[in-house]
Amino acid sequence: MSSNEIRRDYLLNQWVVIAKERKRRPTDLVKKAEERGVGVCPLCPDNEHMTPPAVLVYLRSNGGIRKERDQNGFRHKNWLIRCVPNLYPAFTPPDKDKVKVKESPVLANAVGHHEVLIESPRHNEHPGAARVSQLVHVINAHVDRLNDLSAKPYVKYVEIFRNHGRDAGASLSHAHTQIIATPFVPRIVDEELRACRRFWTKTGKCLFCDILRKEKDGPRFIWENDSFFVFAPWASVHPLEFWILPKKHQSTLLDVSQGEINSLAKAFRACFGGLNSLLNDPSYNFGFHMAPSKEAQDYYHWHLEVYPRLAIWAGFEKSTGMFINVVPPEDAAAELKEAVQAKEKKL
Amino acid sequence: MSSNEIRRDYLLNQWVVIAKERKRRPTDLVKKAEERGVGVCPLCPDNEHMTPPAVLVYLRSNGGIRKERDQNGFRHKNWLIRCVPNLYPAFTPPDKDKVKVKESPVLANAVGHHEVLIESPRHNEHPGAARVSQLVHVINAHVDRLNDLSAKPYVKYVEIFRNHGRDAGASLSHAHTQIIATPFVPRIVDEELRACRRFWTKTGKCLFCDILRKEKDGPRFIWENDSFFVFAPWASVHPLEFWILPKKHQSTLLDVSQGEINSLAKAFRACFGGLNSLLNDPSYNFGFHMAPSKEAQDYYHWHLEVYPRLAIWAGFEKSTGMFINVVPPEDAAAELKEAVQAKEKKL
Repeated sequence: MSSNEIRRDYLLNQWVVIAKERKRRPTDLVKKAEERGVGVCPLCPDNEHMTPPAVLVYLRSNGGIRKERDQNGFRHKNWLIRCVPNLYPAFTPPDKDKVKVKESPVLANAVGHHEVLIESPRHNEHPGAARVSQLVHVINAHVDRLNDLSAKPYVKYVEIFRNHGRDAGASLSHAHTQIIATPFVPRIVDEELRACRRFWTKTGKCLFCDILRKEKDGPRFIWENDSFFVFAPWASVHPLEFWILPKKHQSTLLDVSQGEINSLAKAFRACFGGLNSLLNDPSYNFGFHMAPSKEAQDYYHWHLEVYPRLAIWAGFEKSTGMFINVVPPEDAAAELKEAVQAKEKKL
Repeated sequence: MSSNEIRRDYLLNQWVVIAKERKRRPTDLVKKAEERGVGVCPLCPDNEHMTPPAVLVYLRSNGGIRKERDQNGFRHKNWLIRCVPNLYPAFTPPDKDKVKVKESPVLANAVGHHEVLIESPRHNEHPGAARVSQLVHVINAHVDRLNDLSAKPYVKYVEIFRNHGRDAGASLSHAHTQIIATPFVPRIVDEELRACRRFWTKTGKCLFCDILRKEKDGPRFIWENDSFFVFAPWASVHPLEFWILPKKHQSTLLDVSQGEINSLAKAFRACFGGLNSLLNDPSYNFGFHMAPSKEAQDYYHWHLEVYPRLAIWAGFEKSTGMFINVVPPEDAAAELKEAVQAKEKKL
């Protein structure tokens, strides 16, 4: 057993990482909120020694980008992007590549990776306020890490996600994304894959291409450019939830061209800029949803789901798996559309 | 269509109430946290006119309890328990008993009930600090409302839950439970029922009776009395999560005898008292999980799940449906066990 375990629920197909490596005493949790954000930022330039050696560094070089890794005692300086292992990882690499994941039907090893991608040397360069050129580096680094991690034999899925603001669970305020590589395909991804495969088998079409066609020019449309489409989903779980979809059928970020990465950076800047100005920089989570393997490339369509954290899920939601959303997505789309357009005019 | 809709997710078997009746403008959500808890408490005695007429009132009468309803213009005073319709309901009763629920595969009517059960005339009489005699009234009132609501032809499930503290989504601090009656069986309940039915078909046993046998005297045991068993579940999603199970096989709260209600009240007082003293009155949610129909009575075992809100679910959990819990349930059980025992000695 690796020291972190993953346990299956008694009943549900729901797995929980029992994170002994980042383990806290129960009473440590009392003051958690107050302890945050105090002191020196370990992700800012000149504090590189406060993190483990970077697995990826972008450096400026002859008008282009040079990609490096830190060595054990050495840390690169003057970086544009840094990606480091999480100091308190939920998933850790195995001793060797061949590893037994499942120990029993209710117990597995938490083998994998858990990384922090530092999006900019500037502490507050979050997507809603970032330079588009910097966002291009961020997305390129996502692609690089996805490429590297998904090639490992014990990795079955790579989740790239962002927690922004305390209410969204961010413990560090420096602009960063997290990357977790897991040893099996997680429940929600699996459920999505099954639904898309069923639709594809029945109709010969991609479900998301179909959604895109239906939501185009509809009451939930928010924004688009040449390559990306942004809208509030029909059954939005979160107030102000929005999704970003590539217009072309693509199953993972690995399919995206350099020109499309530029368009995605612009979509980030426009949408998160609009969200910021509408709601005064609210907390949010986002996560990429991607096909875990080539097998799903015909029927699965990658996209980004953004969940502003404006309401608190409570006893009803947790007990039933049903959600109560107090902002209809049509209203959310109307307000976001206006805010994004206003922001774009100013840029 | 009733004015509140329930929409199904594009892919997942996940339904969302689009709560137009409690609808907020997106920008209303900005200041939500600050607005709470200000001013007069609408659930305190003498403010009965601030709520809709009660559907159930417990009054003291000749050494026993008399049960009444408020009439339109009239409100009973000097009550022990009051249950009122929620002013901003997520689910509302239909015009007539026979009603079409599903409008399409992705759209349903939010018919049902949404009630607030005021647990005591004393503002702060929460389970961790309540008199056991008052908790007996509370549980009796749960049973009464469950009886009444589950008999309605358009009700398929009744969820009784509690949000305690701001971090758990409580907008009112007066001691109260909420009751929501839904027009179909929610996803998590349905998944649990299927799992229990499979186990029962295979082994002839109740899955929860089996869990109880295995967790007895184990490292996750917390507390027990003659009728109830309390433990931290194997794959706890939340730090300090615990479940309360009846020792006897019972499928809903309607099966519980008056003597067992007294034991359950004591279990509430002991466990929530221990949780309070261990973590200085943390926010939490709890929800009853019960069989929705007689069909499930042999294989489903009702129980209460309690989720302290000590950590924030973030991008990873929301995108994957996998959870990271930083307190192993064995540690949680050890600390809760000690805290509950210490509390009991003082009582």
